[in-house]
Amino acid sequence: MFLAGYILVPGSHFAGMWRHPYSETDFCDPDLFKDTAVTLERGGFDLAFIPESLSVTTGLNDNYETFLKYGAVGAIRHDPNLLVSLMASVTKSLGFTVTLSTTYMEPYHLARTLSTLDHFSMGRISWNVVTSAGPSNGHNFGHFPKLISPEAYDRAEEILEICRKLWKSWEPDALVSDKASGLYADTGKIHPIDHEGERFKLRGPLSLPAGPDGEPILMSVGVSPRGRDFSAKWVDVVFAIQADAEGMSELRADVRRRAAEMGRDPEKIFLLTAVQPVIGETEAIAKARAEYLDELIHPDVAIAFLSGMIGVDATGFDPDTPIDEVLESAGKSPNKAAVDGGAAFPWLERIREEDRGRLWTLHDIAIRMARSTSTPRLVGTPEQVADQLESYFTSGACDGFVITPTHFPGSFDEFSRSVVPILRQRGHIRPAGHEPLTLRQRLGLQG
Amino acid sequence: MFLAGYILVPGSHFAGMWRHPYSETDFCDPDLFKDTAVTLERGGFDLAFIPESLSVTTGLNDNYETFLKYGAVGAIRHDPNLLVSLMASVTKSLGFTVTLSTTYMEPYHLARTLSTLDHFSMGRISWNVVTSAGPSNGHNFGHFPKLISPEAYDRAEEILEICRKLWKSWEPDALVSDKASGLYADTGKIHPIDHEGERFKLRGPLSLPAGPDGEPILMSVGVSPRGRDFSAKWVDVVFAIQADAEGMSELRADVRRRAAEMGRDPEKIFLLTAVQPVIGETEAIAKARAEYLDELIHPDVAIAFLSGMIGVDATGFDPDTPIDEVLESAGKSPNKAAVDGGAAFPWLERIREEDRGRLWTLHDIAIRMARSTSTPRLVGTPEQVADQLESYFTSGACDGFVITPTHFPGSFDEFSRSVVPILRQRGHIRPAGHEPLTLRQRLGLQG
Repeated sequence: MFLAGYILVPGSHFAGMWRHPYSETDFCDPDLFKDTAVTLERGGFDLAFIPESLSVTTGLNDNYETFLKYGAVGAIRHDPNLLVSLMASVTKSLGFTVTLSTTYMEPYHLARTLSTLDHFSMGRISWNVVTSAGPSNGHNFGHFPKLISPEAYDRAEEILEICRKLWKSWEPDALVSDKASGLYADTGKIHPIDHEGERFKLRGPLSLPAGPDGEPILMSVGVSPRGRDFSAKWVDVVFAIQADAEGMSELRADVRRRAAEMGRDPEKIFLLTAVQPVIGETEAIAKARAEYLDELIHPDVAIAFLSGMIGVDATGFDPDTPIDEVLESAGKSPNKAAVDGGAAFPWLERIREEDRGRLWTLHDIAIRMARSTSTPRLVGTPEQVADQLESYFTSGACDGFVITPTHFPGSFDEFSRSVVPILRQRGHIRPAGHEPLTLRQRLGLQG
Repeated sequence: MFLAGYILVPGSHFAGMWRHPYSETDFCDPDLFKDTAVTLERGGFDLAFIPESLSVTTGLNDNYETFLKYGAVGAIRHDPNLLVSLMASVTKSLGFTVTLSTTYMEPYHLARTLSTLDHFSMGRISWNVVTSAGPSNGHNFGHFPKLISPEAYDRAEEILEICRKLWKSWEPDALVSDKASGLYADTGKIHPIDHEGERFKLRGPLSLPAGPDGEPILMSVGVSPRGRDFSAKWVDVVFAIQADAEGMSELRADVRRRAAEMGRDPEKIFLLTAVQPVIGETEAIAKARAEYLDELIHPDVAIAFLSGMIGVDATGFDPDTPIDEVLESAGKSPNKAAVDGGAAFPWLERIREEDRGRLWTLHDIAIRMARSTSTPRLVGTPEQVADQLESYFTSGACDGFVITPTHFPGSFDEFSRSVVPILRQRGHIRPAGHEPLTLRQRLGLQG
């Protein structure tokens, strides 16, 4: 079972994160992230996962003000490479996932940055390849041609081809460094790539030797058919946001099936799924803590967030309006499976299942979505949380978890001190101690 | 007097650097650069200067093999931002210069990366703005339109305008972080930039608050008239590669004059010039050390390097051929001031001045250029080196120095332990101790 910590500030999947009494608030302090990295490494985590957005997060109608004003989602976005570099500088074993866009970045920059990170982290890097779908990212690249799927995926694939060529442009033993003869590198083992594709033309070679891990582990998040094919073809790890075991299992099995059809070993593709633990010394305390969290979600944020999900500006409605009325007023059927804008309704049905007889209001639904978006919230004692994780894991729904915090970075401390020892005792995660490992070794993917 | 350390591996301005008996050779080891950063900080340096090239370094006819084979110039090129981040992670006071290209990078990436570095270094960042002239850089961006000056400078200026707008998009007190009310940021103090220029369209705002140093200090290296105007308009510090005090003085006075004409305070534009100290316990030892360095320069590298400088492939000539014969064979007049390809001849005349009666051969000239390119080599005891620096400085030729190493990173150790105490005693550099300072404070540019 692999464990990752989700590094997003000031809000995470829980919209009110920074307001929690235990949360830090100086999200530009480098020592905060160093501290967090050490916590994760000591605490038994395999990875720190860094998401990305190339703008302040935007909701419906390109509005960013509400999210920024109340510090929801990722209102603060550092250069993700620099976050990794900072966190790698104080650790020797923790792995990293850096999310970088193929739509708004150049292949040479991507290849060189990731290779540098591979060297500087001694082989602890994975790249979460994203095409930056959604309008938020384009705001600061308005001069770019608009790319939508499948074109965005075509570009991503050409970039991955180029990166792989660049990462292989130095054979592993090309560096000689013989002071006596003056021979620094065997240029017979360093090859130009001479790539001339549909979009890119690069000579290569890379300006760096092959990294300690060969090349970065690849990750992806796509759930569309093309996204699943992309994962099946290229990646080692899929990061999933799925609300239940069925969703996780279906995605995992489907990507593995597609990979097998392409001739890859399906057992070597792992699915990590996001979960939000809310832990208490007793079940009652855990429940009280979970309930308390709702108070930290500003209603305007919750409704702005929901507006984006349903594609309807719900900010003008009385929060007590039944959700069905809100949807119907915009001509959206509350019972249809999917609506325009990419938003889907299964999550709404899932929430209704909590209490089929209840008249669900706009406010109720909005707060529920702002709690943990569509990821499971696991409320209970350390044993109960461990049981739930174990159940997902042993049933084959996933290969590990991305822990999303309710307070930062204390959620990681709590989890690692209370739940990790239980999982370790049950044999699901590796023994304590953090001997240096490359990420490929850690995932058992070498060779 | 400001002091910077030049961070370029495996070869620096001295082509044989990595072969020196005291040089390290594992240039992908992060701890080497951490060590170097601590050395510079403790040693009284103000800055670590990181140059950039977006490919393996290329000589005449796009040939990169010779430089790579013998480890000359910057055959290894990490992502420069990550080098800064690594070196900043172990220091509290040392400043940094990161060189980044306006021709091959996007304004949003540049602004966000530099702002992140500003935050993570607590305000110790400067940006050396380069347009990546020269063919080397374009090899991995063959799909880009070819940009030559003045177009490359026009693009650079639009990018600087955008970056400044983004860096100012959060007013300094926009971040509120009031847990009680839930107000994270005062969005009335965070402004979109709505830039629509000739090349770029960005909405903004930046996804980060204003940095501790407001915005990065700007540097440049241009010597062309347009380059000097660019420096005069935008930058705080000019990095010069000038062979003598006359060249430094002329450049410094000219940029300051241009700045004054534009209404800027010329006294607030500093010139740092590259020098290569070769220090010995006695003058005789220093001279012997300097002589020894020649043995480390592979003749093929020296001739490949010179070929690029003169625009003539000299690799086929007998090394003992007189240089004038090599030039004349290619129809180049050895006495003309400039030839095509941007190479200039003043350096050749300067070398001849060493001994007007000598018949200078291809080999002689090539080795001399590969010693320290066109930067002064200062050979002597610590006192003699300090005298020479003092003489440049007090005559108004420059405001400080970029120390280029002959062995890495030991040249910085030697310089800081032997020359710095003398300069400090003479009152030219700040007292020992490294209280946290932003780079703006360090340069006396705040307010």
